[in-house]
Formats: sequence, C-alpha cells, structure tokens
Amino acid sequence: MEKKILLTHCPDAKGLIAKITNICYKHQLNITRNNEFVDRENGRFFMRTELNGIFNDETLLADLDDALPQGAKRRLVNAGRKKVVILVTKEAHALGDILMKCFEGALDVEIAAVIGNYDNLGQLVGKFGIPFHHVPHQGLSRPEHEAALTAAIDSYGPDYLVLAKFMRILTPDFVAQYPHRIINIHHSFLPAFIGANPYRQAFERGVKMIGATAHFVTDDLDEGPIIEQDVTHVSHVYSATDMAKAGRDVEKSVLSRALQLVLDEKVFVYGNKTVVFK
Amino acid sequence: MEKKILLTHCPDAKGLIAKITNICYKHQLNITRNNEFVDRENGRFFMRTELNGIFNDETLLADLDDALPQGAKRRLVNAGRKKVVILVTKEAHALGDILMKCFEGALDVEIAAVIGNYDNLGQLVGKFGIPFHHVPHQGLSRPEHEAALTAAIDSYGPDYLVLAKFMRILTPDFVAQYPHRIINIHHSFLPAFIGANPYRQAFERGVKMIGATAHFVTDDLDEGPIIEQDVTHVSHVYSATDMAKAGRDVEKSVLSRALQLVLDEKVFVYGNKTVVFK
Amino acid sequence: MEKKILLTHCPDAKGLIAKITNICYKHQLNITRNNEFVDRENGRFFMRTELNGIFNDETLLADLDDALPQGAKRRLVNAGRKKVVILVTKEAHALGDILMKCFEGALDVEIAAVIGNYDNLGQLVGKFGIPFHHVPHQGLSRPEHEAALTAAIDSYGPDYLVLAKFMRILTPDFVAQYPHRIINIHHSFLPAFIGANPYRQAFERGVKMIGATAHFVTDDLDEGPIIEQDVTHVSHVYSATDMAKAGRDVEKSVLSRALQLVLDEKVFVYGNKTVVFK
Amino acid sequence: MEKKILLTHCPDAKGLIAKITNICYKHQLNITRNNEFVDRENGRFFMRTELNGIFNDETLLADLDDALPQGAKRRLVNAGRKKVVILVTKEAHALGDILMKCFEGALDVEIAAVIGNYDNLGQLVGKFGIPFHHVPHQGLSRPEHEAALTAAIDSYGPDYLVLAKFMRILTPDFVAQYPHRIINIHHSFLPAFIGANPYRQAFERGVKMIGATAHFVTDDLDEGPIIEQDVTHVSHVYSATDMAKAGRDVEKSVLSRALQLVLDEKVFVYGNKTVVFK
Repeated sequence: MEKKILLTHCPDAKGLIAKITNICYKHQLNITRNNEFVDRENGRFFMRTELNGIFNDETLLADLDDALPQGAKRRLVNAGRKKVVILVTKEAHALGDILMKCFEGALDVEIAAVIGNYDNLGQLVGKFGIPFHHVPHQGLSRPEHEAALTAAIDSYGPDYLVLAKFMRILTPDFVAQYPHRIINIHHSFLPAFIGANPYRQAFERGVKMIGATAHFVTDDLDEGPIIEQDVTHVSHVYSATDMAKAGRDVEKSVLSRALQLVLDEKVFVYGNKTVVFK
Repeated sequence: MEKKILLTHCPDAKGLIAKITNICYKHQLNITRNNEFVDRENGRFFMRTELNGIFNDETLLADLDDALPQGAKRRLVNAGRKKVVILVTKEAHALGDILMKCFEGALDVEIAAVIGNYDNLGQLVGKFGIPFHHVPHQGLSRPEHEAALTAAIDSYGPDYLVLAKFMRILTPDFVAQYPHRIINIHHSFLPAFIGANPYRQAFERGVKMIGATAHFVTDDLDEGPIIEQDVTHVSHVYSATDMAKAGRDVEKSVLSRALQLVLDEKVFVYGNKTVVFK
Repeated sequence: MEKKILLTHCPDAKGLIAKITNICYKHQLNITRNNEFVDRENGRFFMRTELNGIFNDETLLADLDDALPQGAKRRLVNAGRKKVVILVTKEAHALGDILMKCFEGALDVEIAAVIGNYDNLGQLVGKFGIPFHHVPHQGLSRPEHEAALTAAIDSYGPDYLVLAKFMRILTPDFVAQYPHRIINIHHSFLPAFIGANPYRQAFERGVKMIGATAHFVTDDLDEGPIIEQDVTHVSHVYSATDMAKAGRDVEKSVLSRALQLVLDEKVFVYGNKTVVFK
Repeated sequence: MEKKILLTHCPDAKGLIAKITNICYKHQLNITRNNEFVDRENGRFFMRTELNGIFNDETLLADLDDALPQGAKRRLVNAGRKKVVILVTKEAHALGDILMKCFEGALDVEIAAVIGNYDNLGQLVGKFGIPFHHVPHQGLSRPEHEAALTAAIDSYGPDYLVLAKFMRILTPDFVAQYPHRIINIHHSFLPAFIGANPYRQAFERGVKMIGATAHFVTDDLDEGPIIEQDVTHVSHVYSATDMAKAGRDVEKSVLSRALQLVLDEKVFVYGNKTVVFK
C-alpha cells in the first residue's frame, strides 16, 4: 500500500469530481482526503486528492487524460519526504527555525544543503550535520554567481529552493530553472515599504503592525504568488530595531508555515495567485 | 435554476465521493462547491455539496439512498434565507450585533422574532421593526415558562433558535424539541470558570486572555458541540469590569460567526463534536 | 472630587516626571494612572496622568508652565464624555457599529449628529434618535460643499469628527479647521492598494490577509498619523465581494477601537506618528 | 554610566511617583523608561523604573526606604544579562526554541546548563556548547531526585529556572528554594483539561482553539501566577496528534515570550497574579 497525492487543475466543467473520483474508484484507490475549489470568475477547477492503495501510475494518468478537458494539468506525487536546498545570506533566524523544526520532527523534510553568499552561517549549519556551501558573489558578475549557485544546487536535485533571507536579486534566467519551486520570505506586507531598510521606513511611518509574506519567486522578485502572510502588533515603544526583531519572528514563522504547505503539496499556483488547501 | 445544498453523513466506504457526485452529474446538477472530511478514527464520512440546476428532490434522494451505505443521513436544503428566533435576557450586545449585521446586509437571515424573559430589550428590537415578546419567568415553574416560550417560538416556525445571552437553563424536554437547532454563546473557553461571575473569577486568576465559545445546546447546557471559539488579550490593567466588556466583544463576534456558519449549512454535528466547512 | 487628565508633551529633560508629579502632589491631587514615554531618538517626552481631586486649573497650569522646558505643550482635560459628529456616505457598517456600541453602553460618547452626502443612512440614524443632516455635494464646488459641512458641524461644537466611510476627499482648508481632530478609517494597510476598488486589487493580487487602518486626517488624506490597525485572514475561497465583506468587519472594529482610544485621551500626535497609551 | 532597573511594590499612597522620581533626580539618575500601575481594588502600587547614571546603591535604597510606606518592597537590579538553568524531560521543541533564539541573538540570556531527567536531549544541547546534566529520577525517591537536581542547579547560581516541558511534579520544598524564580509552560489554557493526554481530551471535546500558559511555579504546580498566554486556531481536520503539534508551537512561543519578559524584569508577582509591563 502506497500513499500518493493527485493534483488536478483544469478548465471547469460539469461532472469533473465524478469523473476523477470514478477513475480512482475503478483503480481501487481509497480517497483519504479530498479538496476542490472552483474559481468561477475564471472558470478554473482545482482538486487535491490523497490516495491510498496500489498504484499503476501510467494507466491511472492515461485514464485521467482521457476524462479531463483540454488543457488539464494533473500530477501524481509521492506523499513522502521532499528534498530542499536553502539559500541564505547573513541572517540566522529563518534558517535556524527550519533547522530546529526538522531536528525536533515538526517539519518533515530533507535539507540536502544550505548555500550562503557569506560564510558566517556555516557553523550553525554544521551543528546539524548538513553540508554548507559558501558561494560568494564578490568579484563575480550576476550570471557568473548564479551559475555557481546552480551548479551547487543541482548537484542535490532538490524539489524546492527556500530563500531564507537570501538578499540577492535573482535573474529571470535563474528563476526560470525552478518554476514555482522557489519559496521566498518577504520582510513585509505586499504592497509594502520598498527599498532599503523597510523596518526603518515602517518605524518612521509609525505603523502599529508588522507583517511578512511568503511567496513563490517569479521574475518580479517580491511580486510572485503569495502562499502565506501574517502580522504582529507593535507600538510606539518599539524602536526601528525592535520592529526588525518583531519582524524576524513573523518572517520565520510565516516561512516555516509556507514551506510546510508546499511540502504537503497543498499549494496550486495559477496566474499570480495561489489556491492553498489548508 | 435553483441552488441547493446536499449534506451527506455516513459510515466511510470506498468510492463514496464518486457515487454521490455521479448521481449529481446524472441529474444534470452542477457542483459549485464541495467539501468532504473523513474522520478516520471513527470511520465517518461527511460531505457538503453546493448544487446548481433543476432539482427533482424525490428521485435525487432515492438515488442517493440506493447508493449510500446503511445508516447514512442525507439532507437536501434550500440555499436561501433561513428564519431564526432569538432569545435574550437583559444584555444587548449579542442581540445588537445580529440586528445591525442584518440591517446592513452583512448577515442574511430573517429574524422572525425576539423573545425576552425581561422586557428591557423590547425598545431596541422595535427600532428594527421586529416583533418582541416579553415572556417573563417570574412566578412560573420551569415547565410553565418553557411552555410559554415554546408557544411563542413555534408560532414562527424558525429554522434555528439563537440564545443571545439568554441566562436561563433549559430543560432536556425543551432542548429535545429543537435538536441541534439551538445555538448558544458561552462567556468563556470550555472548560472554563464555572458558576456565577466568570469574569470576576478570570480577574482573580489573573488570566491574560478572555475567550468565548459558541455551541449547540444539548442536555448539558455548556457542554454541547462547539461551533466556534475565539479569544482576546487582556492584561493586569483590566478590572473585572473591563474584562467583562472585552468578553462581550468576543462573545458577540463569535456568536455572529457561528450563526453565519450554521445558516450557510456548513456545520455537521456528530457525537459531541462538529465538522465545520469554512 | 473631580477627575481630569493631564497631557504633557515636551522636549525630554532630566527630572520631568519628578517635577510634574511633585506639582500634582503639591496640589493634593491623587494620580490614579500614569503613563510616560520617551522617544530617545527625537528627545521627546510624553506623559498622560489621570488625576483625582479638587482642581484649580489656572494655578496648576501656571505651576506646570514654570517647571516645564521651553516648547512644552500641556493640556488638562475633563475625563468625562466627549461629543462627536460623524460623517458618512452610503455604507452602514462603520456607523452602525458606533451607534450600537453607544446604545448598549460599550462606547461612552455623545453622538451629536450624523452628516451624510447621501441620505440613505438617515433612517438608521433616526432609529437612535440622533439628528441626521443630508448635505449633498452634487452641483456644488468642493469649497461650497465643505462650507455647508462646516456650518452643519460647527452648530454642534464637537470635540472630534469621525469619518465613518466618508468617501470624499477633504481640502487642506477644511482639515486645518480641525487639527488632529478628524479620525478616518482606511480600507487597508498603509502602504496599500491605491485607487478605486481596493478589495478588487487585493483579490487580484491573491492576498491572504485584509487589513484596516484608523488614522488622523492630515493634508495627505490617507497618510496621517496611524492610531490603530488590524487584519483578518482570508483565502482563495474569498471572492472580491467576500474580501470586501471581511474588510468591512475589520474596518468597523478598528475604527471603534481608535475612537475609544481618542475619547479616552490616550493618543498623542507628533510629527506624523502617534503615541498610544493602551 | 550604568543601567539599572528599580522595582518598587508597596501599599498605594498619594505622591509615591513624586517621591520615587525625586529621589532618582536627586541622585542625578536619568529615567529612560518608567511604568506604574495601581491596583485600586487592593490598594497596591507597582513601579518599574529604568535608570541611567552613576549609582550609589546603598544611599539610593536608604533614601527610598525612608520615603516609601511600611511594607514596601524595592529592588535595584542590573539591566544586564541574566543566567538561567533549563530543566527538560524528553521533548525538544521548547528547549530548541530557546537555544536557537539565544544563538541568533533574539534572546539575550546566558544558558548556564540544561538538566534532563532523560538523556536524549544531551546531543542537541551539546551542539550549542552548553553543559548538559543527566539527572535521572529512576530508582530515587522524590526528595532524593530533587536533592540531585538542586545540587546540579546550585553549582551554576542561576537567576531563574526554566521548565521547558519538564514533566515531573516538584515538591513545595523544592519550589520554596526558588520563589517566583521558576518559569513553567503549561500545555493548555488554565483552567483546562487536567490529567494525562490533554490534547487527546481537547480532541475528544472538539475544541476549535489550542492554548498554552506560561506561569511561575508555586506549590500548586499548574496554578501559579500567569505570565503569558496564547492560542492557535484548530479545526475538525486536526487529529489529536495534529493538535499536539499545533500545541507545541504555541507552547514554545509563549514560553520564549514569558522568559523574555522575566529577563527584562518586567514582571511583578503579587498574590497569585502578575503585573506585566510590556
């Protein structure tokens, strides 16, 4: 008995749930959890189906292709452990939270490696017996640096890349190599304070809340599909430094939650938005 | 074209989603929203299906009864407006929130009448052109008072009763007349401070949060299936009076949200728990 | 015995708390609650002192003026009920929440009048026995309309104006008449989606949270000092309409909380920020 | 120039703020932050004063003792780093969060040692270069085990003990050695599900929220003064295991926040309650 997840995304049509679940039934697969969503404005159908049983992937997918409308996308993925590579710069908080959650079993993922454009987080990563690669950007053109990153990343064949406060802008060419497979944490709500020192800007503006947004990376660095957001209350007693500290706490918890959702294959991307089956 | 909601609750079995959605498809009904949940521990299957089309209720339900396992419960309800009767005592906040939400269109329900065991809320109810019945309990035995309540309630034939801070304990006989149709708001988390003056108790205990619980009423007044809960932060600067005020704010918002969920037929009850498809 | 609140705002200096509290002590006034805050970056001192006793306002303020540094601002205000005029357009939710909270005693304020540039909310206001003025803007220049508003407002001499979804941009001349006395509710976080249909924009962007901001109105309509902010979680199942509905719920609760803070004289404005002693 | 914190707790009286701040002024100390609270019901005065300057502790405290009413307690503590010893059993989450927060600089405390009644967390503690003591309880009477704990603890002279999911009940004799210096995290709201397997109980009850409470340990293990509480929303899709996982997330964040508040000397205990100057 195996456990797999069927992800279906196609134009909406009458009878889709019946067709898909019939095929599963015919294949003697037990549906242990099912979620659907219809975006009526755009006529799109989304379904996530957790299946238990003995799988013949080829015939199952062929049956689905016969039944689903033109333009349907369907994926059958193993429910098991995924592999990620984490990219970092200098800040430890987002990385540290993922490392500790993995260690204690709260996050079930294989961290294949951590790559930093500085080397200061190597010591932390080493404590957990995980390879750390220092891939400095100094003295390199952007394409040269990204080529070095890609080489390091691809030697591990990860399912997803996690940007845990990786403070470099990525080129469209790099991003195109990992479509909807790069998860980033942004320091604020989107739309938000743009440019350097966002917490200083938030402080100057006298905001009463600080937020963070986890999203997939697309060509527009901070404008990709949003996976998860959260906020925390602040007040006038918070200095810009205090706000940054509060912000880091939200950042790490939002990133960890987004990562969990992605690892559980609960996130569909379409256009610049997501469907998240919590 | 009509809109109805099919609610199915039965022992779990392979192929249930396929069977139910096939029948809907055969009846040319369009599924606009579907939610299922399987309680694997107890082997129970729950499904809520929003349908659009032309309905032949009798044949649809007959087809379902043929397909579903023994012991299945299924209901086909109109998606339209429900009718409620609200019971109150002296406090205005929970009632006022429902009245105002209905007035502004945020809550789509017909408030057939409000019944109070005191008369002080009659003026507020009158502002909104809704009948108010004063059904005093003084000088009456509990069965006599409940008979008077029942007579007033039943003249309106409501779908649900809402206890908006109705401070009388109801007998099993009364509750049995409206099974899983009475919604109550409780002043605290459950388990919680029991007895008189719960906010005074919370104050004495120095709690840092105040909560409220909306639940269906069963024979155990405050122990019925929970629909919705929420909390608000408090601190040492809150007096017992301030805590009660903060508590009223949570109470009214939790009750309104629970009522909305019930009116939308999103709540299944089984055993002493609920499945809530948000 | 009277209750008053002393509000002090001045350049920071050593011994300020001692000086101010000494003067209160000398005047035989009992401090029942005291809050201070020092903005060290800008060297500003803020103190809010709740006092009980028999007041000689003139000598008390004179003593303070002798003791405080140059450029100090101090106000001694009665702790009692304030008077507000509410400006509205067509939406009922923010107004309705304030009306109901006043009715039930959760908000202690005199609503002297409600003024609308449309007349559709007159009926709601009338239910609560409060004067409603219809001051239409059609066919009037902006200064003409604002002159009509001012005439209606000033006949009541309110302490504060509340813009409860008043959808007209106010001129600097109008705003200058009520400095830091106009409270507005903005439909979103700031910075935020700008322009028409913000919830449509939020929906298109696929946000997972919806927020609201209450602030004082300055010449930059949505850029004044922030008093209070909050958010609510949304998801892909929310249509733009659902997001607007969720947004209205946040808007009204944020506005009511901001109004309460202002009425309690807990808000200092300086520069474009606030100090809020919760 | 040093930084110290003056903590005053005494019967309320007129002029206390003036008296205390006068003395600070006379000693040429600069007040950088000040908070007071008066519990009017019990007539108690609390004040926390952050001071900058050159201290003569002896004369400062003597001056205060002359000025304050009978029964006053006052402490002058260094604002610097505190030392803690952490007690654990088998679960890593609460400990791990504190270790990582210290490592990344989000929590400023010296973890002198970790003591476990099992040895399985020794490896994690070792990663961070912190001493781990395995003090097993097997085969020991409770007083014998506590004597072993005390010996290990006292060799470090910590300011506070942190019970990071230490699952042993402590005797009044042990607790009396560290009055208001032991911080515990409780798996739920208080009052709450009592006894074994609280998350199983919460699951059976069908709750929609899971909470955690950090408190000082007194003779009644879970009934000491509450420092901090929080909750997270759960739903019918959560198994008892999922609820426990969600609960661990709340537990660790509540404990870390409570620890921060205590380390910052922001918490007063009186009776069975706390005053927390956030």
